[in-house]
Amino acid sequence: MSAVRLVAVGAGAGSDATAAVHAALVAAGVPVAGRVLVDDDETALEQALAADGLAVVVAGPGGSAGDVVRRVIARVSGARLVLHERMLAALQEAYRRRDRPLPRRAERLALLPQGATVWPADDGDPSWALEGGRVAFVVVPPGTPSVELARQLLEFTRAFAGARPVVTRTLRTAGASLEDVEERLAEWLGHTDADVVVATVPADGEVWVRLRARGASAEEAAAALARAEPRVAAALGDDCYGRDADTLEEVVGRLLLARGLTLSVAESCTGGLLGHRLTNVAGSSAYFERGVVVYSNRAKQELLGVPEDVLRTHGAVSAPCAEAMARGICERSGSACGLAVTGIAGPDGGTAQKPIGTVFFGVAVSGKVTSRRFRFGGDRVSVKWQSAQTALDLLRRTLGGVRP
Amino acid sequence: MSAVRLVAVGAGAGSDATAAVHAALVAAGVPVAGRVLVDDDETALEQALAADGLAVVVAGPGGSAGDVVRRVIARVSGARLVLHERMLAALQEAYRRRDRPLPRRAERLALLPQGATVWPADDGDPSWALEGGRVAFVVVPPGTPSVELARQLLEFTRAFAGARPVVTRTLRTAGASLEDVEERLAEWLGHTDADVVVATVPADGEVWVRLRARGASAEEAAAALARAEPRVAAALGDDCYGRDADTLEEVVGRLLLARGLTLSVAESCTGGLLGHRLTNVAGSSAYFERGVVVYSNRAKQELLGVPEDVLRTHGAVSAPCAEAMARGICERSGSACGLAVTGIAGPDGGTAQKPIGTVFFGVAVSGKVTSRRFRFGGDRVSVKWQSAQTALDLLRRTLGGVRP
Repeated sequence: MSAVRLVAVGAGAGSDATAAVHAALVAAGVPVAGRVLVDDDETALEQALAADGLAVVVAGPGGSAGDVVRRVIARVSGARLVLHERMLAALQEAYRRRDRPLPRRAERLALLPQGATVWPADDGDPSWALEGGRVAFVVVPPGTPSVELARQLLEFTRAFAGARPVVTRTLRTAGASLEDVEERLAEWLGHTDADVVVATVPADGEVWVRLRARGASAEEAAAALARAEPRVAAALGDDCYGRDADTLEEVVGRLLLARGLTLSVAESCTGGLLGHRLTNVAGSSAYFERGVVVYSNRAKQELLGVPEDVLRTHGAVSAPCAEAMARGICERSGSACGLAVTGIAGPDGGTAQKPIGTVFFGVAVSGKVTSRRFRFGGDRVSVKWQSAQTALDLLRRTLGGVRP
Repeated sequence: MSAVRLVAVGAGAGSDATAAVHAALVAAGVPVAGRVLVDDDETALEQALAADGLAVVVAGPGGSAGDVVRRVIARVSGARLVLHERMLAALQEAYRRRDRPLPRRAERLALLPQGATVWPADDGDPSWALEGGRVAFVVVPPGTPSVELARQLLEFTRAFAGARPVVTRTLRTAGASLEDVEERLAEWLGHTDADVVVATVPADGEVWVRLRARGASAEEAAAALARAEPRVAAALGDDCYGRDADTLEEVVGRLLLARGLTLSVAESCTGGLLGHRLTNVAGSSAYFERGVVVYSNRAKQELLGVPEDVLRTHGAVSAPCAEAMARGICERSGSACGLAVTGIAGPDGGTAQKPIGTVFFGVAVSGKVTSRRFRFGGDRVSVKWQSAQTALDLLRRTLGGVRP
C-alpha cells in the first residue's frame, strides 16, 4: 500500500491532534509517509496538496482552517463548492449532541466540493472525502479517530492505493541511554538494504527501536519481522517495556491489575504530572487511589508525615525524604504501592551538591521501601517529564514487569 | 524576511519538541512557513529538503535521525562528511555536563558536511549550520532553544534571506465558543486582501484570533497591526486572556503574584493535570502550595473533609461536592485560593442525568466559594484538558484578570 501524506492545517490543529491521527492510521495498518503542518494559509496548503496520491487533511470544519481547506481542495480538484445536504445534517447532529443548534453563520461549513462523500461520526464532527484520478483527499477532525473512522480510512486507502507490503514494529525501552541501546544493537544498525531495517529513535525520556520489514508479499514481510523481533527484543532485555503504542503508564496499570495492587503517588517536582499520566489510562480508577502534590515542606509534613528532622538534616530533596514520602503515602492511603518524587526542576534552586535536574525517587511495594537518585538534563518541563518517566519505570521493574 | 521551513526528523523528535522550536522562532521574529515531520528515512528527508531557501532541521545528534540528517544534507549540498573538530569538542563538553564521557561509537556524531559551522550550547547538544547558494540548513536539537540559539537563528535568517515585512499577533481567548468569536469578529473575517488579515483558530479548549499585518516596510506593518489590535481585542472583551505565547497557567500565576495570594488545588477527574500545568510555570512555588488528587470517595473525605451526606445525597460529581472540595483544600492548606474539579472523563461512568463529559468546578477565593457545571465533548484526554482549561479560566475571571 503506498503511503499517505498527513497534512494538518491551522496552528490550532496542533501537533498532538495530528499525532493522534498519525498513530491511529499506523495502528490500522495505513502507512504514513510524513506529516506536514501548515498555517491556515491558502498558498501554503495548495503547495502541500500539489503532489499525486492520497492526502489525509486534519482540520475541524470550523474556523479559518476549515474555510481554507474547503476552498483549496475545491480549487486543486477543479470542483465547485455546493451546499452538501448530508454534511449539513451531520453537522446539525454534531451540534445537537453538544446541546447547541447549528448557528446560521455556520451553514457555510456544509459547503463542500461537488462529488464529496460525507462520513458522519457517532461522536464529534463529520469527515469527508473527495476522489479524482491520481489524487484523493480525506478531511478528518483533529484528535483520536473513532474505530469506525479508522476502518473507513483504511478501506478508502486500500481502494485508492493498492498494496505494497511494509510491516513495522516499534519496541519501546526505558532506563537505557541511546548509546547503551546502540551498543547492544551494533550488529543490526546501519544495514539499510536488509529485509528488516533496524533504527534507533531517541524519544522523550526513552529510546525506541524501530523495525521495518519488507517482502514480496505482506505475509513475507510479516514473517521476516517475526524472525527478527524476538532477537532484537532479547538484546534489549528488561529495558524493553512494550511495543508500538504502549505507554509506561499503561504497562504499569496492567501490572497492578494483574497483581491486584493499588497505587497512590506523592509528587513534589513533577507537580501532578505523574498522577495525570496514570489517570490518562481508561479504567485507572480500578487501581489508582489518590495523589498528593506536596510543593511546600509544610504539605510534606501534613499530608505525608515526613519527619521534621529528615527535612532539617537532609533537606526535601534527599533519599530519606523520598523514602519517607513513599512510606507516608502508602500508610495514609492504605494503598499497597506508593511512588514518591522529589527534586529540583529548575530554573532556580540548584546548588553545587544538588544541581538542577537532581531528583530522588521513593518506591514502596507491600511495605518494602527503596530509593534512587538521578540527574537529568534539559529544562523544567523536560526534567518533569523524565522524572515521571523514571518513577513509572522504577515501579515497573519493582513489580517485575519485563517485556510483553 | 522570507519564511523558513521547519523540518523535524524521526518519530521521536515528536511534535512537542518541534512546537517549542516553532514558538521560539516566531517569538524571535523569524516567520515560519510550515512544519514538516518526516520519519528518519533518507528519501523522505531528501524530498523535504529539496526546495530552495532556509530549512531549520530539528534533530538531535544521536540515533538514526542524526545519521540520516548528516548524510542527506551532505548529499543535497554536494559536500563530503568530515570529522569536525569543533563539533567533537562541543559534543564532549555536552556529555561531560551529563557526567558521561563521549562513547567511541558516538564519535560519528561529529561527522559533518565540509564547511559546516558549529554553534556550541551552554546547556544541551550543539547545533550546526551549512550555507550554499540558494539553500541553507540549520540543524538544532529538539526542545525549547536557548536565548542564545534563538538569537543565532534570527541573525542567520536575516543574513540569508533579507527582509520582507510581515508582523503577526495571536490573541488568545478562553470561555467563548468558536461560533461566538466568529460572530463578534464578523466584520473582520474573510478579507484576505486587507492590510491586516484576521483569522480564527480553534485550539485545544480555546480559540485563538490571529492578526497578520503586511506593509511596504516593517514599520508600516507594525503600525497597521497597532491600529487593528485594540479594536479586535475590544470585540473579544474579557474572553481574551493573553497574546502570542501566553498560557492560562502563566496568566493565572501573574494574577496570584500581583495580588499576593496562594493557591491549592483538589482534583478528581483531571487526575493531576491542573497541578502539572500550574507547576510548569517557572517560579510557581511562590504561589502554588499543594494539590491533592482525590480519585476515591475515601480520599475526598480524608484529604478534604467532604461530608459523607454530600457524597450520599448528591454524589461525587455534583456542585455541593465541588464546593466542599474547594472549601476543604483552602481550609486544610491555608491557601487563599482553592480550585476543585470533579467530573466524568469517560469512557465509562456516564449516566442519563450526568453523561460523560459532565464536570463540576469549585472556586474559592478568600472564603467565598462558587461552583459551575459544564459539559465537554471528546475523549478522556480531551475532557481532562478542557476541564483544566476551564478551572484556570474560572479562577482568572474570579481574580478579575482581563486582557493584558
